[in-house]
Amino acid sequence: MYHLSSLKQVGLFITFEGIEGCGKTTQIKLLAPWLKERGHSVCVTYEPGGTLLGQEIRKILLSPNFSPAKETELLLYLAERAEHVEKVIRPGLEESKIVLCDRYHDSTLAYQGYGRGLEFEWVNNLFKQLKWPKPDLTFLLDCPVEVGFKRLRGRSLDRIEGEKMAFHQRVREGFLSLAQMEPERIKVIDATQSIENIQIQIREWIKQYGL
Amino acid sequence: MYHLSSLKQVGLFITFEGIEGCGKTTQIKLLAPWLKERGHSVCVTYEPGGTLLGQEIRKILLSPNFSPAKETELLLYLAERAEHVEKVIRPGLEESKIVLCDRYHDSTLAYQGYGRGLEFEWVNNLFKQLKWPKPDLTFLLDCPVEVGFKRLRGRSLDRIEGEKMAFHQRVREGFLSLAQMEPERIKVIDATQSIENIQIQIREWIKQYGL
Repeated sequence: MYHLSSLKQVGLFITFEGIEGCGKTTQIKLLAPWLKERGHSVCVTYEPGGTLLGQEIRKILLSPNFSPAKETELLLYLAERAEHVEKVIRPGLEESKIVLCDRYHDSTLAYQGYGRGLEFEWVNNLFKQLKWPKPDLTFLLDCPVEVGFKRLRGRSLDRIEGEKMAFHQRVREGFLSLAQMEPERIKVIDATQSIENIQIQIREWIKQYGL
Repeated sequence: MYHLSSLKQVGLFITFEGIEGCGKTTQIKLLAPWLKERGHSVCVTYEPGGTLLGQEIRKILLSPNFSPAKETELLLYLAERAEHVEKVIRPGLEESKIVLCDRYHDSTLAYQGYGRGLEFEWVNNLFKQLKWPKPDLTFLLDCPVEVGFKRLRGRSLDRIEGEKMAFHQRVREGFLSLAQMEPERIKVIDATQSIENIQIQIREWIKQYGL
């Protein structure tokens, strides 16, 4: 029962958002096989980098060798998303798949808008012009910045992860503001809980979609 | 006497446009030393690739290994331009330089709009939102597609150059349409003439700016 009001089955688009180390990727890995067991066709993907070309853009974005202007960073993320939407997300939805995407446009609003300080309305207007699929459901895994970063310990940080704590704090608050603006779509989950508890809550929300 | 109506000297932004092989680069190389001899501070630059990060984006754009979606291609050109504007063009203009730029936003309108078939109004609206400097003067070096490509003979073509003749024909017609829309800014020069004659005409136009 995808896209309730539509006669055509057109898939379901679910995104996972949150700061570094919030556990998005782990939750997607647990969710995908559960959905498949329940008979759904699932597409797991991520940003930036969910296409071959996107991986090249990701290299530029996360390289410590560059310090792109704010607008450059924003437009590179949008270019990466354009490729991802056209080559992966839109085809997946058209094949009636459940598309699980690790980061999407809320990340751009949180990182480039709230984090970098680009004007929110301006970034949002760019989006509106691009006419990309909007997620049906978004899980925001929220935890304090310190908790997230503790989980990253032991591996080297990329250019975005390596930003100051105050930056990541603005990103976290940005995500929470987005959730307040769209409570129907964005479900906030306390990501300091155990992996199992988080997964249970995600599955409960998803069951409410009749899946 | 730059920016006639402005009390502040803010430089002059001159762009060169046209299809492959029209001779833009040659003309800029001849013009820059002449302007310098006349006492002007000159910045020569180009798109895509006028910054270090832009060169990485250029590699992706022109690589035969990728076939980006239309929107991806557009946004990559815009990302490259964002970096170029913030790191080269705007600083050059603020230092009262004459910035000579080999391709700028008319190329995007001609190649991604007219050439690829992205809706003109939509591409133009994206531009307007980006608030980048508009050229004071643009030279469109116009010649038949066959003439341009004859000049490229003997070297291997990149992904854009390697497009079909019909694509380049649409690009040429696109450039001419843009010139009709903005005849004050865009000066069309017959690029089948000799290099010397073209340079003479460019210098005549520039002298009219009091330079």
